[in-house]
Amino acid sequence: MSFETALRELSTLLGQRLSRSKSDLDLHARSESHFAPVPPDAVAYPESTEEVSALVRICAAHDCPVIGWGTGTSLEGQAQAFQGGVVVDFSRMGKMLEVNAADMDVRVQPGLTREALNTELRATGLFFPVDPGANASLGGMASTRASGTTAVRYGTMRDNVLGLEVVLADGRIIRTGTRARKSSAGYDLTGLFVGAEGTLGLITELTLRLHGQPEATAAAVCAFDRLEDAVACVQDVIQIGIPMARIEFLDAASVAAVNGYAGSAFPVKPHLFVEFHGSESGVAEQAEMFGDMVSDHDGLGFDWATKPEDRSALWTMRHNAYYAILASRPGARAIVTDICVPISRLAEAVEETGADIEASIIPGPILGHVGDGNFHAILLIDEGQPAEVEAAKALSHRMVERSLAMGGTSTGEHGIGIGKLPYMQAEHGEAWAVMAALKMALDPQNLMNPGKMVPGN
Amino acid sequence: MSFETALRELSTLLGQRLSRSKSDLDLHARSESHFAPVPPDAVAYPESTEEVSALVRICAAHDCPVIGWGTGTSLEGQAQAFQGGVVVDFSRMGKMLEVNAADMDVRVQPGLTREALNTELRATGLFFPVDPGANASLGGMASTRASGTTAVRYGTMRDNVLGLEVVLADGRIIRTGTRARKSSAGYDLTGLFVGAEGTLGLITELTLRLHGQPEATAAAVCAFDRLEDAVACVQDVIQIGIPMARIEFLDAASVAAVNGYAGSAFPVKPHLFVEFHGSESGVAEQAEMFGDMVSDHDGLGFDWATKPEDRSALWTMRHNAYYAILASRPGARAIVTDICVPISRLAEAVEETGADIEASIIPGPILGHVGDGNFHAILLIDEGQPAEVEAAKALSHRMVERSLAMGGTSTGEHGIGIGKLPYMQAEHGEAWAVMAALKMALDPQNLMNPGKMVPGN
Repeated sequence: MSFETALRELSTLLGQRLSRSKSDLDLHARSESHFAPVPPDAVAYPESTEEVSALVRICAAHDCPVIGWGTGTSLEGQAQAFQGGVVVDFSRMGKMLEVNAADMDVRVQPGLTREALNTELRATGLFFPVDPGANASLGGMASTRASGTTAVRYGTMRDNVLGLEVVLADGRIIRTGTRARKSSAGYDLTGLFVGAEGTLGLITELTLRLHGQPEATAAAVCAFDRLEDAVACVQDVIQIGIPMARIEFLDAASVAAVNGYAGSAFPVKPHLFVEFHGSESGVAEQAEMFGDMVSDHDGLGFDWATKPEDRSALWTMRHNAYYAILASRPGARAIVTDICVPISRLAEAVEETGADIEASIIPGPILGHVGDGNFHAILLIDEGQPAEVEAAKALSHRMVERSLAMGGTSTGEHGIGIGKLPYMQAEHGEAWAVMAALKMALDPQNLMNPGKMVPGN
Repeated sequence: MSFETALRELSTLLGQRLSRSKSDLDLHARSESHFAPVPPDAVAYPESTEEVSALVRICAAHDCPVIGWGTGTSLEGQAQAFQGGVVVDFSRMGKMLEVNAADMDVRVQPGLTREALNTELRATGLFFPVDPGANASLGGMASTRASGTTAVRYGTMRDNVLGLEVVLADGRIIRTGTRARKSSAGYDLTGLFVGAEGTLGLITELTLRLHGQPEATAAAVCAFDRLEDAVACVQDVIQIGIPMARIEFLDAASVAAVNGYAGSAFPVKPHLFVEFHGSESGVAEQAEMFGDMVSDHDGLGFDWATKPEDRSALWTMRHNAYYAILASRPGARAIVTDICVPISRLAEAVEETGADIEASIIPGPILGHVGDGNFHAILLIDEGQPAEVEAAKALSHRMVERSLAMGGTSTGEHGIGIGKLPYMQAEHGEAWAVMAALKMALDPQNLMNPGKMVPGN
């Protein structure tokens, strides 16, 4: 289908900020994932909500798909324009609009990244905790219901978005939520748009909940001889209710990759990377309780990162683990899996997955946000080897089946895109048809990120 | 409209458990609110999800409204059958189905009350924290997105419902959510049904998040000479991040009523009732920090309830404050207001409301869950005096206008019912039309609790 008329009108609206240059189309053809590149028909760079609304009205008039784009770090192809159309890049709507320190909230534009937000907040004593690793845009993080290392303590985007401004599929602009901490006033539209991956509308503004910077912080790494001990330790820590700020698992292969990439010298064994937030005495108490748990599970003692720069180095290593693992097999691409199971099934899920990968022809280090029951295998493939691609897909498929059988989900934090679409029916049953009915109600033309999220579109 | 055919078929389905007795209809004509009684056409007492589904299918075939009923403690007329039809009383679906201590979750039927659940959980070391005061059913609490005294620490029903089973308007049965702690798999249907007040379907099962019983608990009351000092103290406590388990405000009139009802002898001044949860040392630390804040705001010192029975007596008094206030004016009925504002505006909101009530012809003690910015004026009226009814309605109206002007909500926790319907447009603007579109998508016949929540139905 050709969208020439739409693109002409969009050019009139946006001038140079509607780009059809090859380099721009290529830059927006593929996100950080293994799906084949698909260049959109054009890339739009709006600068205001009103422009987004006008843009959507033009696209609606000509049945031209509209796909939101933050930083291109989504992992399931969410921002790829598989049916063509206009990618709306929010990089020119990246301002912090208003911080209310007394109410611990902030109003931001969707293109602002989480790191830029936290830099801007530095003087306030507040911070935005959700940390998916990548320096993603806050609009993208809301759209994929991102979480990451700190969700065990501070929650996911679902818990930290207080309200939204959204441009609907017909160009109408709505606001959801209020600045009050809670409300019983009607359907939770904020919650509906968070995680909708741009299929119900485009987020043009967010009000986010902030948290006080902890008085004290401590971080540590801790090795175990056996994977099952490390994971069982996590289960006990969560069940006893130690308020961990982060509790991350890396298997031996992940640790080896991190050592190779960052020059660290961790023993090549399963590790937990942990962080505690609280008052001085609270952190000391948490650390002591955690230490007891580690001993109970034959952990090999702590290595504390007490200085801020050591802590920062530690979490940089953790955040770069994905790149470290990628680099451990030069030329490889990664299929990143993302299951989340009830905590009682975590050890079983990790062990079965590990054994399954072990028996396969490809490497797949495992790491994850185990305090939530969420973990990833980074399946490393040579894309030129069909047998490896097949093996990775089969492993990924069995991971999802394992998760669903355990009462878990096909995606803890990466979202659906096109990668998890085949599992929506199995995970949701008839509820998936309800999602389709909601999509049809808000986007009857199937304009917003078509081909995603709901059946047969 | 007559629903005789539907009722005959429902009789065949349910036998004696479809009641048309006058006493049953009267019992389900009015909840704990000031709206005029409206007896439904019949009351159904289903015993299983399949019966609820069959019941809804029959009602759908004959355009007969279906209204859910928990314990009849909603405050905005949510469970009243203003357009006739069948009230579905969930008292025979009141079982705890399965507790997973390791995952800290529990599956329950909607008719189970929160007190009964906590009694059943006693041996597990876990508890369900959401506490709206009334011993409401969990299905009702989810449907109204209830919260109450502990939301400041543990969140509202939005935060504590992990998944639902729902019977839709066409009788289909769906499940939402998984047992995993988090998921990015599709639209947040759980969040959509929580707070929908039965207008999108009937909740037939809930999976709830549980919390560990705190190792240590301490509670205290604390008086202030001036209302503004008490409220400013709350603002500072929240802003500094003391993890209060409860922080409740009672104005002098509320305290006088409590004294009169419970035989207590609190000084007749504004009070804070507070509770701390944590480890022994954590609670001590929190209490000390709180004590400093109280001193800074000219508080008159603490009265500690250290023994469990004293704590229990304290919170029983707080929970009975509504009845105490009602009893303070014999024969009166109450219009209970329920605004929630950003914490930075709380002192202003309480003071302006207090002055407005002071200048009126009716009494209206103020109390509330001020840690969330949520408070209630209990406006006491003689229903036979039109001037008093008018005065109460005018006060209530101005409270909502004040809240909305401050960026707050018309209802922090009681919900919409018919009482707050007139404010939906002002609070949500165009987003209210989006709610209507969702309602139309899931209940095109307008069968489920008609006349509520959305425009013109």
